[in-house]
Amino acid sequence: MATRRGDTLLFAKPPTIAAFGAVGGKKEGEGPLAAGFDLLFEDNSLQQDTWEKAETTLQRHCLELTLQKAQLTLDKVSLVLAGDLQNQCTASGYDLRGLDVPFAGLYGACSTMAEGLGLAACLASAGLVDRALALTSSHFCAAERQFRTPLEYGGKRTPTAQWTATAAGCCLVQPVGNGPFVRAVTFGRVRDYGVTDINNMGAAMAPAAANTILQYLRDTGARPGQFDAIYTGDLGLVGTRLLHELLSAEGIELTNHADCGLLLFDQKTQQVQAGGSGAGCSAAVLCAHILPELRAGRLRRVLFLSTGALMSQTTFLQKESIPGIAHLVELAGHDPLEEETA
Amino acid sequence: MATRRGDTLLFAKPPTIAAFGAVGGKKEGEGPLAAGFDLLFEDNSLQQDTWEKAETTLQRHCLELTLQKAQLTLDKVSLVLAGDLQNQCTASGYDLRGLDVPFAGLYGACSTMAEGLGLAACLASAGLVDRALALTSSHFCAAERQFRTPLEYGGKRTPTAQWTATAAGCCLVQPVGNGPFVRAVTFGRVRDYGVTDINNMGAAMAPAAANTILQYLRDTGARPGQFDAIYTGDLGLVGTRLLHELLSAEGIELTNHADCGLLLFDQKTQQVQAGGSGAGCSAAVLCAHILPELRAGRLRRVLFLSTGALMSQTTFLQKESIPGIAHLVELAGHDPLEEETA
Repeated sequence: MATRRGDTLLFAKPPTIAAFGAVGGKKEGEGPLAAGFDLLFEDNSLQQDTWEKAETTLQRHCLELTLQKAQLTLDKVSLVLAGDLQNQCTASGYDLRGLDVPFAGLYGACSTMAEGLGLAACLASAGLVDRALALTSSHFCAAERQFRTPLEYGGKRTPTAQWTATAAGCCLVQPVGNGPFVRAVTFGRVRDYGVTDINNMGAAMAPAAANTILQYLRDTGARPGQFDAIYTGDLGLVGTRLLHELLSAEGIELTNHADCGLLLFDQKTQQVQAGGSGAGCSAAVLCAHILPELRAGRLRRVLFLSTGALMSQTTFLQKESIPGIAHLVELAGHDPLEEETA
Repeated sequence: MATRRGDTLLFAKPPTIAAFGAVGGKKEGEGPLAAGFDLLFEDNSLQQDTWEKAETTLQRHCLELTLQKAQLTLDKVSLVLAGDLQNQCTASGYDLRGLDVPFAGLYGACSTMAEGLGLAACLASAGLVDRALALTSSHFCAAERQFRTPLEYGGKRTPTAQWTATAAGCCLVQPVGNGPFVRAVTFGRVRDYGVTDINNMGAAMAPAAANTILQYLRDTGARPGQFDAIYTGDLGLVGTRLLHELLSAEGIELTNHADCGLLLFDQKTQQVQAGGSGAGCSAAVLCAHILPELRAGRLRRVLFLSTGALMSQTTFLQKESIPGIAHLVELAGHDPLEEETA
């Protein structure tokens, strides 16, 4: 039911993303993808007394509206695969404590959406779940306090810094359906090129993104031009430039690449320095933009990668460099096998 | 290839744990399971300059000796499923950056071993991996600094506190082999009974353990007496008492229960208060004791649960209660289907 070629799993019967949801905050609602979100909050506190609870609430809304869109109740879900950037993934853990459903926690930093979607697709393709939810989130204010400085400190941001999205994304994956389809998954390998600047995450993650794209292309024999687009998670301006350099050195010129960190916000007007980031960034771009475009037929076949930086505030203070990882899922609007047999 | 009953997956062809490894620190080497460990360190620093790096090194040794025992090189491994307790799971992330292998990060706190083993078994049962490693660790000194107080502070421990194991465990899971076998998996649901005391984790996790055991028994129709033993992760003295009370209220009297937190250390002589804990605790007891006993035929069929407390230092300071989760795997020394057909 799936063929393994190298690190890549190709599903003979591609599982389907039956429903998806995207929720965002104020800045996301002022950005170019605003119309694709299912729910946007003007007030990033979501009327909670901590930023951490605000993120949990954001995630909860995203899960609930995804189920609503599928006209499903939670008891029809076999497993939730969720994770986030908070220490000990508490945005997800505290979200799930209010829900009565099996839960497997993930940590992939900003790569969580592709990791969760990839695992959900594996489980669905094998009929091990009837339905699984892949869910993640991030919150600008919770992330700034944890990884950099509290907002009250008023720290100046460097030009290479990225803006953590206040956003959540959720995909409902099931064995069969009308698409969009997950055709293949490549789980990434950790790459560390020695970047130590936590205000330059894009540079730290670009080698992992390059490695996973090259791995997928080697494994499948596909060419980049066969896809309508190749999306990376949140490399931003600096990481995107590095990705193109790294691939160019391998003889690959990407002409159809877009980075979620550069799609979520308007680089000219929104003052997000090198672009968006955070686990919620690629998750929201997937659910507010890429999947709707696939469903509408305006995109047919894409590669979607989420990229994660696996450091912590502790390893930063210990002057460690930043390991990066990137997971890839191949998505298609229609099941090409059905087309062939039709 | 697997039947889903409620939350429980029963594998028609149970995947096998082809090799396993356990590594521990000084106190673990003085405990009753010392002889079962593959490697023990007298010096918990492992000659590293931080406790965090010491844990990464511990985990690395565990992965490498598991592969050695299986006479395998890393390129034969399709996926590593790993996680730990450090913020942003850096023990695992920094371990994996030195290894060239696909990696999916998990966060299940002290439930990580059963979560990783359960996911690895799912993927192996469906032939989606040739071989997967489920890996986790914890380190007393890294955990004390992060969750409580640095060792230098010399804080007095409460009687309900548990002692984080300095240990790692690793299981190599593959679709076929000679066992021990993973016959079934139940991914747990989060339970929170309002415990706010981070020095009483056992109490916070007991409701989740009770819930998962009840779920498995309901799903399968099995009776507790059908197993040689039912192991829980690290409930310790307090959590174990609560587990028995909670199950007793449901009409179930456990007579074959053992808690990994009470097996790893000698309660009389080792001054570990309410018992052992940490992601490495149940992982090491699994790999140093339970799996060897299954392989030797002294145990035939057991339930193994790892239990996790999903709070962080931030949610503790915010006076949140502690959500718990418990994942279950059913293990057998021999494939009962083969026995039936023999």
